[in-house]
Amino acid sequence: MSFDATPPAAGPAWHAEARVDKERRVEVSLGERSYDILIGEGLIDRAGEEIAARLSGARAVVVTDETVGGLYLTRLEIALAGAGIEAASLTLPAGETTKSFVRLEETVDAILGARLERGDAVIALGGGVIGDLAGFASAIVKRGTHFVQIPTSLLAQVDSSVGGKTGINTPRGKNLVGAFHQPVLVLSDIGVLDTLSPREFAAGYAETVKYGLIDRPDFFEFLEKSRGAIFAGGSERSEAIAVACQAKADVVASDERESGARALLNLGHTFGHALEKAVGYDPQRLVHGEGVAIGMALAHRFSVKLGLCSGQDAGRVAAHLRAAGLPTEISAIPGPAINRDTLMEAIAQDKKVSRGRLTFILTRGIGRAFVAPDVAGDEVATFLDEELAR
Amino acid sequence: MSFDATPPAAGPAWHAEARVDKERRVEVSLGERSYDILIGEGLIDRAGEEIAARLSGARAVVVTDETVGGLYLTRLEIALAGAGIEAASLTLPAGETTKSFVRLEETVDAILGARLERGDAVIALGGGVIGDLAGFASAIVKRGTHFVQIPTSLLAQVDSSVGGKTGINTPRGKNLVGAFHQPVLVLSDIGVLDTLSPREFAAGYAETVKYGLIDRPDFFEFLEKSRGAIFAGGSERSEAIAVACQAKADVVASDERESGARALLNLGHTFGHALEKAVGYDPQRLVHGEGVAIGMALAHRFSVKLGLCSGQDAGRVAAHLRAAGLPTEISAIPGPAINRDTLMEAIAQDKKVSRGRLTFILTRGIGRAFVAPDVAGDEVATFLDEELAR
Ligand SMILES: NC(=O)c1ccc[n+]([C@@H]2O[C@H](COP(=O)([O-])OP(=O)(O)OC[C@H]3O[C@@H](n4cnc5c(N)ncnc54)[C@H](O)[C@@H]3O)[C@@H](O)[C@H]2O)c1
Ligand SMILES: NC(=O)c1ccc[n+]([C@@H]2O[C@H](COP(=O)([O-])OP(=O)(O)OC[C@H]3O[C@@H](n4cnc5c(N)ncnc54)[C@H](O)[C@@H]3O)[C@@H](O)[C@H]2O)c1
Ligand SMILES: [Zn+2]
Ligand SMILES: [Zn+2]
Repeated sequence: MSFDATPPAAGPAWHAEARVDKERRVEVSLGERSYDILIGEGLIDRAGEEIAARLSGARAVVVTDETVGGLYLTRLEIALAGAGIEAASLTLPAGETTKSFVRLEETVDAILGARLERGDAVIALGGGVIGDLAGFASAIVKRGTHFVQIPTSLLAQVDSSVGGKTGINTPRGKNLVGAFHQPVLVLSDIGVLDTLSPREFAAGYAETVKYGLIDRPDFFEFLEKSRGAIFAGGSERSEAIAVACQAKADVVASDERESGARALLNLGHTFGHALEKAVGYDPQRLVHGEGVAIGMALAHRFSVKLGLCSGQDAGRVAAHLRAAGLPTEISAIPGPAINRDTLMEAIAQDKKVSRGRLTFILTRGIGRAFVAPDVAGDEVATFLDEELAR
Repeated sequence: MSFDATPPAAGPAWHAEARVDKERRVEVSLGERSYDILIGEGLIDRAGEEIAARLSGARAVVVTDETVGGLYLTRLEIALAGAGIEAASLTLPAGETTKSFVRLEETVDAILGARLERGDAVIALGGGVIGDLAGFASAIVKRGTHFVQIPTSLLAQVDSSVGGKTGINTPRGKNLVGAFHQPVLVLSDIGVLDTLSPREFAAGYAETVKYGLIDRPDFFEFLEKSRGAIFAGGSERSEAIAVACQAKADVVASDERESGARALLNLGHTFGHALEKAVGYDPQRLVHGEGVAIGMALAHRFSVKLGLCSGQDAGRVAAHLRAAGLPTEISAIPGPAINRDTLMEAIAQDKKVSRGRLTFILTRGIGRAFVAPDVAGDEVATFLDEELAR
């Protein structure tokens, strides 16, 4: 189905270019659990028909947050009703703290209260927080209901909505509890990104850049050339999202349950998570994608220090991230200085620690990342001392 | 490995016969998720070596309840330590109310607090309550750790420990939240059944009888002949448990995620769950296996009423259950009379309702159960009126 088949939704004039852009489709190949990711403008308004076409007769519960719900819930409800899909909804507070046991229980109760059965669908309308929480609830209610993702942040569109990882945080750490639960459909409406704050857009852009840095040097070059257009909302935006989704889908297809290749997706994340933890997950100071941006810059500089990567490549990466408005140094984080030992402790607790050894994603250059399963803690500590002194 | 290879644990003299009985092994065939169920005396004392042989280098968290923990936790800890398995433990209150969100969170926290990794194991030492709760926690911590079942009630040995269904209750109903998570090993130590109350033993016996009634008429005859020996603890006990496990394993292997054949395992359960709900899950009035016993008797009498089954078969089933000390009529439940409408409402809410129609397991005779997906609510109501007037 091409985009011109449906009337465009109202939107700012500078979106004219995107509107004539074709709709893109990425398939995540997982045998009988395969599913489509549709990327294009106005998809929220088509959600009802797309879902009904895949889950005939299903009812639904929409889970959203206050910010996104205020902007898009009514449009989604109209679209669902238009396709004859009976739907209840649950609106939760926006923000990372919503990924908790208490909110999980509340979500589960709302789904059970609506008497959803296994053949019905939980729909996540929101960023990664809502996607992770609602997906986890969908996984465990009656040991699995259908799940549909309508990711509304750039981060969710290029990353969290693809791959089936769902979960919540506990006081002991982020994403420590969850399930693998694949959606039956992902609808990435690129129009909704216009209401995302520039800071959140940039954060999602960091995850987009990540795919170039892992193993797609051409894509990194495309991003260097097209950054302006992507931020402005042109057809380059949906192209970038589609390539990113495809990149993640490829990795997921080859390693659904994260035993090997999928670890590369953690590029920048060991440092990033440690930084997020060090600031107490205070989004005023650091959002996830910013942590990843600093983490990717650190991973490249650490690789330079270990003699693996050229300083030129590390510099090019940092320059591109900075041009996108992203931080690339620990000192760029506002607020009290961050302590080396706090970071080391967080790294040791990270779930990518396997039987005591530190696993890092390092790189031999742009697009040449690899899993280093046996990094010595001392080298990391020394490197962090240098970085903190920068 | 045969039982005589290890010294027998101390136990009452009348267990001499069981002690010379061979250890039995049932394999649950699920491709790469296949696992062994070992059935025999003294298996708790061999748990360390059996686990270490399958999960080299793994650490463990044992989850148990106060009753079972008081009796067997030390023996298990000694066995684990003897095999070099480092283990922490969590002891929860005994009883169905432990299968809650709050206890799940507590269990998850204990597992995370022990810093278990995906390659480590959560060990359930207890009845179905502990197995379901600990198994669910094991499924969701880091999106899946290894899981070992050491079922200590007869019900858990013949039913809940086989098949990978895990979960908790919510105020909206029993087992409405959970995951499919297969164990890597099940150790059914038949010696521990000696400390089980006669009432709980009988309740587990009801689930054992169920397999005969579904599709194993020969097994039902064996049970009719061997009931006395099974209750006394002879080699017939481990044979009955092994046959029951095999029966469940066969169904699970053919339908891991409960889409079809597995529904037969719900024989007696739609009525049984409704009764449990009607008494507010008060174990003073009714435990699960007793509800199933009444439910199976009802399913047979309902089948007689529908012209499907002979009155003789229904009578034989009820007589056998009664001889085992189990209730077979709603009026046998102590306390205030149970209301027809309360039961009908519970049946309609049961998770086996598919898009409004009532699904029941009915039967054409002993060992000839089948799924009836389209039973009219009226007929059920009329039947219940007759039963309540008995
Ligand atoms: N499951 C995975 O594989 C995976 C991968 C990466 C990240 N994550 C998780 O994703 C989360 C981060 O995702 P996120 O950055 O989307 O966070 P988020 O869901 O909190 O969204 C960020 C903020 O943007 C707002 N927002 C979202 N869409 C909007 C829109 N269209 N218009 C206006 N405001 C909008 C939200 O209300 C929120 O305040 C983290 O919890 C992270 O752990 C999961
Ligand atoms: N997962 C499944 O497939 C499945 C199947 C059937 C039932 N179940 C669940 O199993 C639960 C019922 O199991 P249960 O009957 O074992 O309940 P339970 O775990 O509460 O055990 C019953 C009682 O017996 C005690 N006990 C257990 N073993 C003992 C021993 N060896 N010596 C002395 N006391 C002992 C327990 O402390 C408890 O008080 C229910 O929650 C039901 O939903 C699950
Ligand atoms: Zn990320
Ligand atoms: Zn049962």
